[in-house]
Amino acid sequence: MSESLAGKAAALDAADELAKHRELFALDDDTVYLDGNSLGALPRHVPARMQEVIAHEWGELRIRSWDESGWWTAPERIGDRIAPLVGAAPGRIVVGDSTSVNVFKALVAAVRLAPSERDEILVDESTFPTDGYVAGSAARMTGRAVRPVAPGEMAAAAGPRTAAILVNHVDYRTGRLHDLPGITAAAHAAGALTVWDLCHSAGALPVGLEAHGVDFAVGCTYKYLNGGPGSPAYLYVRGDHQGSFDSPLPGWNSHEDPFGMRGEYVPGSGAVRGRVGTPDILSMLALESALDVWTGVSIDSVRAKSLALTDFFLECVAAYVPEGRVTSVTPAAHGERGSQVALRCDDAGSVMAALIAAGVVGDYRRPDVLRFGFTPLYVGFGDAERAARTLSTALG
Amino acid sequence: MSESLAGKAAALDAADELAKHRELFALDDDTVYLDGNSLGALPRHVPARMQEVIAHEWGELRIRSWDESGWWTAPERIGDRIAPLVGAAPGRIVVGDSTSVNVFKALVAAVRLAPSERDEILVDESTFPTDGYVAGSAARMTGRAVRPVAPGEMAAAAGPRTAAILVNHVDYRTGRLHDLPGITAAAHAAGALTVWDLCHSAGALPVGLEAHGVDFAVGCTYKYLNGGPGSPAYLYVRGDHQGSFDSPLPGWNSHEDPFGMRGEYVPGSGAVRGRVGTPDILSMLALESALDVWTGVSIDSVRAKSLALTDFFLECVAAYVPEGRVTSVTPAAHGERGSQVALRCDDAGSVMAALIAAGVVGDYRRPDVLRFGFTPLYVGFGDAERAARTLSTALG
Repeated sequence: MSESLAGKAAALDAADELAKHRELFALDDDTVYLDGNSLGALPRHVPARMQEVIAHEWGELRIRSWDESGWWTAPERIGDRIAPLVGAAPGRIVVGDSTSVNVFKALVAAVRLAPSERDEILVDESTFPTDGYVAGSAARMTGRAVRPVAPGEMAAAAGPRTAAILVNHVDYRTGRLHDLPGITAAAHAAGALTVWDLCHSAGALPVGLEAHGVDFAVGCTYKYLNGGPGSPAYLYVRGDHQGSFDSPLPGWNSHEDPFGMRGEYVPGSGAVRGRVGTPDILSMLALESALDVWTGVSIDSVRAKSLALTDFFLECVAAYVPEGRVTSVTPAAHGERGSQVALRCDDAGSVMAALIAAGVVGDYRRPDVLRFGFTPLYVGFGDAERAARTLSTALG
Repeated sequence: MSESLAGKAAALDAADELAKHRELFALDDDTVYLDGNSLGALPRHVPARMQEVIAHEWGELRIRSWDESGWWTAPERIGDRIAPLVGAAPGRIVVGDSTSVNVFKALVAAVRLAPSERDEILVDESTFPTDGYVAGSAARMTGRAVRPVAPGEMAAAAGPRTAAILVNHVDYRTGRLHDLPGITAAAHAAGALTVWDLCHSAGALPVGLEAHGVDFAVGCTYKYLNGGPGSPAYLYVRGDHQGSFDSPLPGWNSHEDPFGMRGEYVPGSGAVRGRVGTPDILSMLALESALDVWTGVSIDSVRAKSLALTDFFLECVAAYVPEGRVTSVTPAAHGERGSQVALRCDDAGSVMAALIAAGVVGDYRRPDVLRFGFTPLYVGFGDAERAARTLSTALG
């Protein structure tokens, strides 16, 4: 059995058009890295670029780099690099701050566009915790209440009292892909606005922000976008909302004339309105450099490989692991699956420790989940087969 | 005249105990860099450290670095490095987000500690704009109003309706040092809380946060702390406010059990409560490395040299520049002066361009101010003399 799946893996890798992209990443050790949905691997060219940024742009040009090295315009420029990966038009995305801070901006701005009788914010009940905490703060500060709703019931739950809904596109724990087109359409039919959290989908599958009329979206850049630890997040605002985007964090960077140093706040036009304070240039330019790995890559080919990888991993797990020892909590249906496989087992903590010791790096999520992220740009089918084989050993 | 001032500069440089610190910075070109109050110069050892962070910690250890390389605890660890420079006790400062975002956290938290009949927030009328914009948002979202007050009248203005006051320790334009002990004491006497913005004072002069009982403080790290472009800001919360600090940005990083992934928000204890989302590690670790230049430096010696430098620069300007051609808007009294000299002249824009072309880098602040920042760790008296001499040429 092992040999036939290993052979199948080799054949799949040989036919994989994206396989050559693995060479772009610093993955020279004998590790199967299935934690790119927590921290993406380092693109090989980033260290040299960052030496230039630090030693030359900061060290030699110093203050001149805000203009001459394009630092000032980096948040919008990098936003436009991310845009095609999530189906956004140019000029809609700005990079900066953390995902949590961007959830706050987007949700408060969404609620401010709703009449006051729309007094509830719907949040998917399985949300990554920070989204729920920040939604609670946004509700408290705008006189609304948060109502947790199962993602599958979100479309039906949106109603005349709904100001905005906040949903994770892919559940961080189970890997379940939520119905962005359907929930967005239902929210709009109910007169509510949508905020989508793309942390676990951007760079792994097509999002289609413009195509589906999403109002606001946020996401991090250090998972499938490989921007580096804590690299800045981004904020998407639909074109027809940009002019009325009313940020709760109106910093000087979003002013129409930031160097006018005027006492009165007059927001700028377009994506810049989502900016706040001085952007963290080193983290931001590492992200910009990291995005070079996407040159010539179509997100549809990434999605196709992602599904093939997770299918094959589940096939290997089924073949190698005794039935009932682990249970997949990731949906089998392609239309409901992100780019990870989450397996439940009672001793997940010690099993993941054994896996990591054996060179297969995934994530343990309390209390009982083994999480394996599949980044199509650098994970191969051989990796998936080895991971499943190592898992079966680790399970004892 | 020129020769005697040049001679005096040489003597002052020879006697300067801090002069040797200049070698720690990448300042090998023939530039007099008087813009460290906008972007501090690069400490020479930072590029090598950042190569290690990027190539090894991110590139090789990857996700393990959150624990093994101390990434997760960096915000508090670096806060404790900044603490002695601003007179804070350990465990009070957390690093992360931009200054603007931290003003929002601090001001909202301050207002939340005040009874609702305290319905006004006092902001110094000459504030750096972002503080005013963010104060406006904090006021709007907490049902208060902002009242601009001249800093000199702030102590008298605090009264029974004052919830909180927000003051810049040093004015970004004029370089005027505001009376932190006096205003803080007056605010407390009136039952109000204080938020101090230390952007233009931290690293240039003693602040004495604990000594003067400051309630909250924020500051950037890319000016006199040399942390790099857009390096993360920090938030100080006085010890007896930490337990009641109620952040408007309750992200998962400030939870008492961040990896418990619990739906209910329960804030952690101590400085960690000021955190929000995932910290921008590359920018943050560059800052941490940059702080090494402070080893063995006392902030009192920095202050003494700063005042000597700005005194001497003003002396040289008086000697070289025809009377009336420029007017200093920086106070002559030491007790009212930060670490910069701002000179007003009608054609300041073109004069600064000529200065920069001649290798003297300062800042032009619209409409008519030439701003020269003096960073005692790397600016010498010879630099000050050359800057004044070049200025006299540029003024024609």
